[in-house]
Formats: sequence, C-alpha cells, structure tokens
Amino acid sequence: MRLVSVDTDGTEQPGAVVAAPDGTDRLLDLAGIAGGLSLAQLLADDTALAAARLAVSGADAATLPRLDDVRLAPPVRPRTILCLGYNYRGHIEGHNEGLVEGDQGGDAAPYPNVFIKTANTIGGPNDPVVMPAAATDVDYEGEIAVVIGRTARNVAEADAMAFVAGYTLFNDVSDRGWQNRSSQWALGKSVDGFGPLGPWIVTTDELPNLGGLQMEVERGGVVTVRASTDAMVYGVAFLVHYLSQVITLQPGDIISTGTPARSVQEQSVHLPLADGETVTIRVTGLGELTTTFVRTDER
Amino acid sequence: MRLVSVDTDGTEQPGAVVAAPDGTDRLLDLAGIAGGLSLAQLLADDTALAAARLAVSGADAATLPRLDDVRLAPPVRPRTILCLGYNYRGHIEGHNEGLVEGDQGGDAAPYPNVFIKTANTIGGPNDPVVMPAAATDVDYEGEIAVVIGRTARNVAEADAMAFVAGYTLFNDVSDRGWQNRSSQWALGKSVDGFGPLGPWIVTTDELPNLGGLQMEVERGGVVTVRASTDAMVYGVAFLVHYLSQVITLQPGDIISTGTPARSVQEQSVHLPLADGETVTIRVTGLGELTTTFVRTDER
Repeated sequence: MRLVSVDTDGTEQPGAVVAAPDGTDRLLDLAGIAGGLSLAQLLADDTALAAARLAVSGADAATLPRLDDVRLAPPVRPRTILCLGYNYRGHIEGHNEGLVEGDQGGDAAPYPNVFIKTANTIGGPNDPVVMPAAATDVDYEGEIAVVIGRTARNVAEADAMAFVAGYTLFNDVSDRGWQNRSSQWALGKSVDGFGPLGPWIVTTDELPNLGGLQMEVERGGVVTVRASTDAMVYGVAFLVHYLSQVITLQPGDIISTGTPARSVQEQSVHLPLADGETVTIRVTGLGELTTTFVRTDER
Repeated sequence: MRLVSVDTDGTEQPGAVVAAPDGTDRLLDLAGIAGGLSLAQLLADDTALAAARLAVSGADAATLPRLDDVRLAPPVRPRTILCLGYNYRGHIEGHNEGLVEGDQGGDAAPYPNVFIKTANTIGGPNDPVVMPAAATDVDYEGEIAVVIGRTARNVAEADAMAFVAGYTLFNDVSDRGWQNRSSQWALGKSVDGFGPLGPWIVTTDELPNLGGLQMEVERGGVVTVRASTDAMVYGVAFLVHYLSQVITLQPGDIISTGTPARSVQEQSVHLPLADGETVTIRVTGLGELTTTFVRTDER
C-alpha cells in the first residue's frame, strides 16, 4: 500500500493512494477505518492495517478524488529522526564536503555515522522549504527514509524487519555554513522545515526491502545524483538493530539511510540553493518528492 | 517560584514548591489553576502564571504535603533539547575527552558547539538512569538547563530573556564509547533516559540570570566539579538569540549550558559509572539533582 496523511483544515487523517485506470493517483479516505488514529498509530495497529488493506483492494479508484487536489501532510511526524552520514560507497571517496577528521565512509567505517535532526524540520511533501535569513549556504540530500511501524527496543538484526512499516523519501536539507561551524552538525541539519518527507509511505508488503532500487536526484531539471541502493553500506535491518540498542524507536520515527555521491560535475561546483529552485528525488517504487526552496526576508 | 510537574498515576500536573517553617519543602497543587495545562503550557500563559504566583504567596506551607512524599515527573517534556559543548572556560584546556579535531573551547571558539539529545532521554528528577547492556562507558555531566517559556523565533539578543521561563538542573549523561564511534556524538548522548531533569524550574522572577552561581558535582560523595557560572563562555541571552535564528524554540524546550571542567584528580582517571553509583548536581538557588545509575541485564 501507499499511505498518506491528508491535511483537512489542520487535522491530519490517514489515507491510501490507489491508481485509477486513467493513470492518475486517487485518494481513498481511511479516516473512518483509522477511527482517530494518526497514520503512525495505524501503522502499529494490525487490525486497522488489515482493514485498510481490504478497503484498498475493494476500492473503485475511478470514483475517488484525485490526489493532486488534496493537501498532503508529512506522512508521519516523528519524535525521533536519525540520519546516516556517508552510507553509500563512493560518497566519501568522491565527495568530502562536510567530512570531519576521523570520519570514514564506505566499507572502511567501523560504525555507522549517525546524526539527529530535530522534529521542527519535518515538512509535508508539497511544502516549500523556507530558507531563513540566517541560512545562506543551503544544500539538498536525496534519501530514502525507513519508517518504524512498531516500538523497537533491543531488536535483533534477524527480527528487525518486522519493526519496519515501510519507506518514504526524505530531503535532508542542510545549511553547510551552520553545519561546519563546529564539530557537531546539529544546527545546520535542524533548521525549521529542512526535512521534506513523503509523498507517501510504501509499506513493506509492497516493497519488502531496498535492494536494487534506482535513485535519481534532479536540481532544476539536471540530474545530479544517479545511484543504486545496492551501494548502501549499512542496510535497514542492521540499522534498526544497531540504533534500538540505545534508543527505543517508536511508530512513526524515521531512519534516513543517507545520500549517494553526486555526479563528478556536481562535485566540482557547490552553489547554495537560491530562491525558487526545485529539487526532485525519485526512487523506483517510491515515487518522487519535489521541493521548492524559497527565501524569506522576514527576520 | 519553584515549579514542578507531579506524576499522579501517569498524569502530569503542575505544582509549586513552598518552604515550610520547619525547613521542609511542601507541594502546592496547581492543577486547578492550570486547568489541564502542562507546566510547559502554564509557563507560556501569563494569566495562569500570575494566578500561580498569587496562590504561592497566599499558601499556608505548614498545611501542605511534603514534597518528598510526591512522585515528580520531569518538569517539562521538551520537543527539542539543545546542549552546549565546551561552554566553560577551562573545559577544553584541562579535559579533552571527546574533543574532536577542529573543536575549540573557551574564548577561542568562534561559534558555540551545539548538539542535540533526543526526547527519549528525558527522565524525572528521582528516576534512576538505567544503563542498557550496550552502554559500557557511561559518564555524567552536571549542567544548568535554560527552560523556554514562549515561542522564540529570530529573537534579538536584547529581547531574548523575555523568552526564558527559568532554569533547572540537567545531567547530560553520555556513553563515551558510542559518542566516539564517529564524528557525531548523537547516539552516545541519546540513550533512553540519559537526561535526568529537575527537580524544579526556578522562574526568572526569582533567579533573573545565571551570574555568579556556584556549581558542585559529586560522585559517590566526592566533589569532582566545583565551578562558577561566571566561567560560562556563551550566555543565556546570546544562546536563545543564536539558536532561534534557525530553530523555533517552543515552551518547554531546553538549552543545556554545558559542563564545567572536572577537578585535576578526576581528569586523570576515567572510570565508567557502575551499578548503584550516584551523582549529585548542586547549584546555588537551583537546588540539587541526585541520580542513581543502575545496570539492567535485560536484552
């Protein structure tokens, strides 16, 4: 299933996306089935999830409203957002921006490099990223986020996939200036709204794992990243296991699996995002997430 | 005022601490005045805060229950927990554990070193810190936390103190092993429950600023840190201003102002905390926060 959160006058309700015969995506309202649950709570509720699956299989897509006419919220609002640095082979070797002494990437890293983004970063799939006056060196990172489906604490790697609800797209927007002001990247990663998420969660019954997916990232129509998830260093099951040894993961929490290396041309230039630019992340089976970056003069 | 959150069968309600003539602390229930607000919400509500102040001034302390008989929750449950590294002069020069290439401390640092702890770290003032099997190198850091009282976004330094509700004590518990596995300290700082907070918030009408306060930290009865807040590098107003340029701070969010250097004897040995050890943080005007560390065999 592809699951979304729909924003109706500020209330966020679960929905499912179904394809109509005309090729358009349509919205199946799951608010009745969810009975007040958020999408994150629904992901943790086997009965509600089974009911949603039944509703999707019986839906007459052609009669449903078009997804384009709906305002989407972030599919989940994570309490905890954990992100991977240097988690694609080739990222370190070719692209050392933000690289800190002591860090290693690819197969050489003895442990995953994990950092935190704060909850204020999460944005809906159609929300622009508003770059505040203080952020003058804004950059994008196209990533696949793992969405936790049930509370995970001290989970063995062999059991870990049962705690994963599905996958979605995430733009780990960063201000490189703030990121590099000291050893800890925290502030450059945690600017308000610097984490567009969505558009939907593809559940693990539809996409069991991240093997062999193609990712493309476009900036202003130019492809700057083209990679396969097979270049990922630490996989999903290991990450859930590893992180859950110290942090109890909750339904709706996300683990973003890191960004692949950029193309050689892109690595040679670094231009901060300017007012009006767009970035699109596209991954096989996960759809695409397009974000517009805008400047604010507000202080 | 000294404000607490009281845990009554899992419901957390605001209260105030008042001193009785016999020298004991007593609890004034503010649940009626709060009318369902959490303490964080009450801090943002001028009317409710004024009513609380009036109730405290009119309270007959001798008739109130003893604070010792009450179960305290963390005074606030922050969405965002921002912490300072190397924010006391002397910390860097004498104590470079966890120091990362490129970091500077004291007056030499061009910017504050800021890191994030996740929300799962927050513990109540009497809760033990449970050290999971994976955490084998657990350490303490006694700090003063600034509690945000109203939503702060792009706040000028001159206006910043109006956004501060008060101060409390915070133990920035860390697993040094996990902290030093890669450049980003995130996981070593964010273990479940590795952030005891409290016991109460002293509001800014009682403690307007952090100037000239004495801090002592004891481990097992031995003083390991003795410092004055006058050695703090970046002050409260600057920090609120600086951080609010990129992160909108909410009522109940905390900024922990960093740990002073340890005594010379303590710096020469580093012994991870063992099962049953206690650490007490004590600051003029802010009371004390004693935490017991326990091992769990649970996996």
